[in-house]
Amino acid sequence: MSGTTPVRAAVLGSGSWGTTFAMVLADAGCEVRLWGRDETVAHEITHERTNARYLPGVELPPIVATTDAATALAGANLVVVAVPSQVARATLARLRPHVEPDAVVVSLMKGVELSTDERMSQVIAEVLEIPEQRVVVVSGPNLALEIAARQPTATVVAGVDDEATRFVADACSNAYFRPYTNRDVIGVELCGAAKNVIALAVGMAQGRGFGYNTTATVITRGLVEITRLGLALGADVETFSGLAGMGDLVATCTSPQSRNHRLGRYVGEGMSLEDAVAATGTTAEGVKSCRSVLELAQHHGVDMPITAGVVAVLHEGLPVDEMARGLLARPQKAEGVGA
Amino acid sequence: MSGTTPVRAAVLGSGSWGTTFAMVLADAGCEVRLWGRDETVAHEITHERTNARYLPGVELPPIVATTDAATALAGANLVVVAVPSQVARATLARLRPHVEPDAVVVSLMKGVELSTDERMSQVIAEVLEIPEQRVVVVSGPNLALEIAARQPTATVVAGVDDEATRFVADACSNAYFRPYTNRDVIGVELCGAAKNVIALAVGMAQGRGFGYNTTATVITRGLVEITRLGLALGADVETFSGLAGMGDLVATCTSPQSRNHRLGRYVGEGMSLEDAVAATGTTAEGVKSCRSVLELAQHHGVDMPITAGVVAVLHEGLPVDEMARGLLARPQKAEGVGA
Repeated sequence: MSGTTPVRAAVLGSGSWGTTFAMVLADAGCEVRLWGRDETVAHEITHERTNARYLPGVELPPIVATTDAATALAGANLVVVAVPSQVARATLARLRPHVEPDAVVVSLMKGVELSTDERMSQVIAEVLEIPEQRVVVVSGPNLALEIAARQPTATVVAGVDDEATRFVADACSNAYFRPYTNRDVIGVELCGAAKNVIALAVGMAQGRGFGYNTTATVITRGLVEITRLGLALGADVETFSGLAGMGDLVATCTSPQSRNHRLGRYVGEGMSLEDAVAATGTTAEGVKSCRSVLELAQHHGVDMPITAGVVAVLHEGLPVDEMARGLLARPQKAEGVGA
Repeated sequence: MSGTTPVRAAVLGSGSWGTTFAMVLADAGCEVRLWGRDETVAHEITHERTNARYLPGVELPPIVATTDAATALAGANLVVVAVPSQVARATLARLRPHVEPDAVVVSLMKGVELSTDERMSQVIAEVLEIPEQRVVVVSGPNLALEIAARQPTATVVAGVDDEATRFVADACSNAYFRPYTNRDVIGVELCGAAKNVIALAVGMAQGRGFGYNTTATVITRGLVEITRLGLALGADVETFSGLAGMGDLVATCTSPQSRNHRLGRYVGEGMSLEDAVAATGTTAEGVKSCRSVLELAQHHGVDMPITAGVVAVLHEGLPVDEMARGLLARPQKAEGVGA
């Protein structure tokens, strides 16, 4: 697993992030196979070098895409998981027999498993029965469409084992994709899950007509409360001011590409949750995970007023104006994580 | 100076931020006088309750504006300084005889004095010959036009003396303006000066056609290098992840209202610095201060690659593409302030 080991990668999931990461790996010189469930998409990626549905206008490098897991996973020393987080357990259980015993497994997934409150790297280690040392997480300000346009992008590669982490960082490093390594898997995964809740809050504020001051304040105080929860869970404070924390949060909260941001905006404009979900076209991940995050915070005695506000607006009928007033009316205090 | 002391405030400077802060104080129940150099503006503020040039469309509360410093400052226990930073020393030297001996003085100014490298609170204490305990700084994600529209806004009130800091926080706290207190004057002022340099870098990247990933990365890594310099200067790390640090940086780098952001964008689109300055209409503060910030960093042995890139592009003819490539080509490393 040294820097000179040839990389044979299998990417599981042919959506926008899976396909884009396969492209990143191929552009970095890896041999890449991509597994997906849709035969048409697999054929298109392999033979036409496009994925028109998820990455319109992008010309892909040579990638062999297949619906056959055995073909994709045979001989792969790097396995990248990019399936929807709530189906990760079931999908991995089916693919497990084909995963090479020594492969390093990368999670590109965000969120927390609803039934178990487990982070995605925990789900992977559990289902594949591999030690946590072999699971690595990639997260950062990584909107897939921009990476697929080969814009310069930085990311965080996090793992508890330095050799495995380095292996993944070397495998995906190319002219436009720059990985920073980090040992704080808990912090990186928490940021990925909690940012969607803050993106909902930012969307609500903007839908209500508030501008850049409010947006910046919600992002800043949102990161303070995520950091507070992270410290209670044993994460490293620097992760939160890094690319997987602040970086991903800023990208998600300022880009119209984020579903959570968009759904929040509809709610801020006065739509019911039901109508907003319909208008967004798909349930934004934060709608479900805001409750998990708040429960986790309450369990650890951590105050998360913005997250609590999002839960109250989405699930308890609190008007957005009341939420804003409630946040402003909190007693004056010193700022900081302890505040 | 307790919470119940009636506040008689004098705001020096009738530009957009001075007028807006006078409005914030008046809406918080203070008696407010505003000093400015323009007789027409003073008359308009006092008699028509508008400042059409700087705050179009805004209806002001009752504020007595005057060009007579003695009238503005007589009996004022709170003096707010909102004049351009590079003329602060000369202006304050002239007004000094009228400042009440026990007044608390607030700086709304950003930047570092060019000839001395002093922070604005240092200039104030020096010229007015008052102890640093009586100087308080207000800074945060505070775009004036949005506050003047009475949008909910949070800010940081920083001072080394808790009583004076509390006095200012109480004086400006109202239904839409929420102050958080902080003791780290150095950190708050450094953030105010250095954010403009990062806003230039973000503008350059966007002018060059890069999107949200790059923007978020430049903001995040920019804050890391500001934090690194701050720690070398004895600032508190939490200030940088707070409203005066991250908050103001995010607001400045995402709002088209920022002159630095706009000028950077012109340069990113290929304009010369001279043409970009002409197109922006006024020299953006970061064009000058980027050199001061970089000198300060070099003096303390602190690495600030983004700031160095901005200096090289603006003052040494480095093409923006070269700057972007240079930043991406830096060796892979672990992330964090120490990296």
